[in-house]
Amino acid sequence: MEYFSSDALCNFSIDIFKKIGCSTEHAELAAGVLSSADLRGVDSHGIARLIGYIRLWEKDRINSQPNIRITHQTPSTAVVDGDQGLGLVVAPEAMKIAIEKAMNVGTGWVAIRNSNHFGIAGYHAMLPLEKDMIGLAMTNASPIVAPTFSKDRLLGTNPIAVAIPAENEPPFVADFATTTVANGKLEILQRKNESAPYGWVQTKEGSPSQSPQEVANGGSLLPLGGDRDHGGHKGYCLGAWVDIFSAVLSGANYGPWVPPFVAFLEPSPNPVGRGIGHFVGAMRVDAFRPAKEFKQHMDQWIRTFRDAETVAGQQKVLIPGDPEREQEQIRKEEGVPLLPPVIESLQQLAEKFRVEFPAKA
Amino acid sequence: MEYFSSDALCNFSIDIFKKIGCSTEHAELAAGVLSSADLRGVDSHGIARLIGYIRLWEKDRINSQPNIRITHQTPSTAVVDGDQGLGLVVAPEAMKIAIEKAMNVGTGWVAIRNSNHFGIAGYHAMLPLEKDMIGLAMTNASPIVAPTFSKDRLLGTNPIAVAIPAENEPPFVADFATTTVANGKLEILQRKNESAPYGWVQTKEGSPSQSPQEVANGGSLLPLGGDRDHGGHKGYCLGAWVDIFSAVLSGANYGPWVPPFVAFLEPSPNPVGRGIGHFVGAMRVDAFRPAKEFKQHMDQWIRTFRDAETVAGQQKVLIPGDPEREQEQIRKEEGVPLLPPVIESLQQLAEKFRVEFPAKA
Repeated sequence: MEYFSSDALCNFSIDIFKKIGCSTEHAELAAGVLSSADLRGVDSHGIARLIGYIRLWEKDRINSQPNIRITHQTPSTAVVDGDQGLGLVVAPEAMKIAIEKAMNVGTGWVAIRNSNHFGIAGYHAMLPLEKDMIGLAMTNASPIVAPTFSKDRLLGTNPIAVAIPAENEPPFVADFATTTVANGKLEILQRKNESAPYGWVQTKEGSPSQSPQEVANGGSLLPLGGDRDHGGHKGYCLGAWVDIFSAVLSGANYGPWVPPFVAFLEPSPNPVGRGIGHFVGAMRVDAFRPAKEFKQHMDQWIRTFRDAETVAGQQKVLIPGDPEREQEQIRKEEGVPLLPPVIESLQQLAEKFRVEFPAKA
Repeated sequence: MEYFSSDALCNFSIDIFKKIGCSTEHAELAAGVLSSADLRGVDSHGIARLIGYIRLWEKDRINSQPNIRITHQTPSTAVVDGDQGLGLVVAPEAMKIAIEKAMNVGTGWVAIRNSNHFGIAGYHAMLPLEKDMIGLAMTNASPIVAPTFSKDRLLGTNPIAVAIPAENEPPFVADFATTTVANGKLEILQRKNESAPYGWVQTKEGSPSQSPQEVANGGSLLPLGGDRDHGGHKGYCLGAWVDIFSAVLSGANYGPWVPPFVAFLEPSPNPVGRGIGHFVGAMRVDAFRPAKEFKQHMDQWIRTFRDAETVAGQQKVLIPGDPEREQEQIRKEEGVPLLPPVIESLQQLAEKFRVEFPAKA
């Protein structure tokens, strides 16, 4: 593990995105989303994925100069076609539209098709916060999750993020995969050679398993809850909801047709829509009650939960967003830790595109 | 267990609601929501709860002639004050407003305060379906759920329901508590003298437990997922989201201040808002893409999931709403089964209000 300054990594990503043809504006936007993930401690969605995006571009599956456009709209809704652009760029552009609509009629809701992986959902959900709006972001993803009672992989980890402003407290920012765990947690166990708790994965036959290799071996992640007895059917409902809002509303691919993020797997030859789909929303707080009043009650909500009595052995009750904010504080000072294979992949990119790779912090 | 005709039970509820002063329209609406729960197999939210509503009315905590009114609005949003009315009436009235707004600007979102228990969330979410709209309904509830790492009861079972229309397939209707299980499942285990799987409840000290008596003994239900290792913090995020949308947006009570449903427990003497809160929404499908196109893709989505390969021992993969629809078919023919204590409570009401109690089917 070596540490790098987050600014230096962000500038490196900007350089690379520009090299594949992105405008400066788009390159900065995309790099900003990755950088936000690295700062917030969501390592699986930060600069570690940069090479993945580039490989998709090399296969003509990402368009670095997309014509992102509204194909249909009403005063509170729109469908955006991302023109195969980076989800890192398409999603914030779509959120801009949602925010504008919320300014006009109270809320704005945008379904997006023909996009690609959009990075961390929380980044997009947080965009409306500074305007005293609530933000919502969801996306579908490559299918590695089996619905309850099935052994087929039909859903992605399909995350949901909700960001809600407060007055003196930091905002409430929930951002979670609708599976028991995201794939990254399994990779950590693999590296440590440890087994997973039951409820995370099943074998390709659908049997309970504790092996972190299971997904790599054709098995699947389980929806949040795990098996039926532990409420896994509710996680399946959540993942399905995200899939339908992101893709059936927008005209993107859904279920097993969602194109894979990795460039070595080909998308379905018979797609049911275009690219992957997202769904974002913005709600003006003062479309419901005066913003100050709302935010003061959010402060009280947050303090009530933060001050709740803990069970023995736990230091405190967390508010959604706390762990990421703590990481951000630490990493702004100490830098972003990168694993050797990630550093190697970035050095490869540096060489290929003749861009300088930053020195360690 | 004895069986009663669902129509007869519904008429009985109408009579009782009229006796406490509800208008015919409100009585029919409220009885319809209870009846829908009984038909769909959600026994805990059907006529079994009738006496609970009446007891709250007797304690002046339910107003049978509410002046339900919009206190604030924008083209796509409203806040509704339920004037302490039955949630069974207030929520459908609020959904009407959401639907009207969706007609005008694509979507409508209504936060409701000063209400009471609204019955099954799915009923309300399904109201927009016939207009080719997606429906959404959530509500907060009396606190019996501890956030992750805490032993305090700060959240209710806070359900979410999402209803999405299809073309030839029945609609997708997800309706679930944001806990591993709803309280009713524990009551069933208590009656059978069986233990619960880990992940459902914890003791009042916050220790894992398998006792279905735990909540009655001061313990708490766990958020969907169960403990931290199984994603319980995501269930906590979901429950919190529902609480904030239902109550902080509307000006209702949130967290530990949500008034109890049972009449023998008093509401907090220092409320932070009025009554309990709900949040409902309606989205016109054709605010995104032509309704027919959307619904045909929903058919394909549904068939893809229904036809997925099952794990050994399971007959089929379910679409959210399937089990309730099957129950509805059966119960329309065979009648609604009621347990002896429920029948007794209804006979008490019959006597008290001099209304005839229906004969067995």
